[in-house]
Amino acid sequence: MTSVLHSIARRPLQASLFVALLGIAILGSFGPEVVRGQAQTDQEASKMLRHVVLFQFKPTSTPADVQRLVDAFRKLPSQIDVISDFEYGVNNSPEGLDGGLTHCFLLTFKSEADRAVYLPHPAHLAFVEILKPHLEKATVVDYWAAK
Amino acid sequence: MTSVLHSIARRPLQASLFVALLGIAILGSFGPEVVRGQAQTDQEASKMLRHVVLFQFKPTSTPADVQRLVDAFRKLPSQIDVISDFEYGVNNSPEGLDGGLTHCFLLTFKSEADRAVYLPHPAHLAFVEILKPHLEKATVVDYWAAK
Repeated sequence: MTSVLHSIARRPLQASLFVALLGIAILGSFGPEVVRGQAQTDQEASKMLRHVVLFQFKPTSTPADVQRLVDAFRKLPSQIDVISDFEYGVNNSPEGLDGGLTHCFLLTFKSEADRAVYLPHPAHLAFVEILKPHLEKATVVDYWAAK
Repeated sequence: MTSVLHSIARRPLQASLFVALLGIAILGSFGPEVVRGQAQTDQEASKMLRHVVLFQFKPTSTPADVQRLVDAFRKLPSQIDVISDFEYGVNNSPEGLDGGLTHCFLLTFKSEADRAVYLPHPAHLAFVEILKPHLEKATVVDYWAAK
């Protein structure tokens, strides 16, 4: 290694290329944690406008109906680009405080303006139309994420 | 650049070092997106057990009461180490589907075992005790986050 560095050091262009690549490599390897460790403060967190959507489906809705609706909701991020993050899951709380709500969808927007694009977006409205016949109850709460 | 590569190519150790660094540099620069694009599949997402807690406080509870309770909840991550992530916020949904729920707390656990530590944890139970007199309604839904 010493001899390599030594040999490279005698060639200025190679040396600077080597140092630059080494720097990028080091930054690249540790980058995600180092950079994010600094950035993931309250300020970054507050850029997340969370949109929590909870559903209870009708007792007459079949598992296939529910799956079709879940799949349709999961397609929205590919149809509506203001959705900056999306996740969902099925309730498994042991606390008995779900009030019958079985499915949670957590959407994230970067601004209230983005949410204002999402809510009346044709793809969202089309989803709501196919959802309606199967919806027993919906609870929706939005918030700016703070720590 | 060609002459540098040419010159390096004549020195096998330097060449492999150069190629390795170039590879790491490229991977490092694009890493966060490329690596995560692959990793942030259901498998990675499913390591997050979300615990969504929604509160409506009693109409007799003052803003100071509510703030005291919010602050007490926010202290739990420093008291209960199985809480791997915590955020909260005040509802600002324009959809009118909040059912009176005004505050959302989103806790994340890494396993159901961690949740089983949290639920009966003395610090959590102490919080519930000071919460009770002010709680009109609570809705709690947990889910393994999937995409």
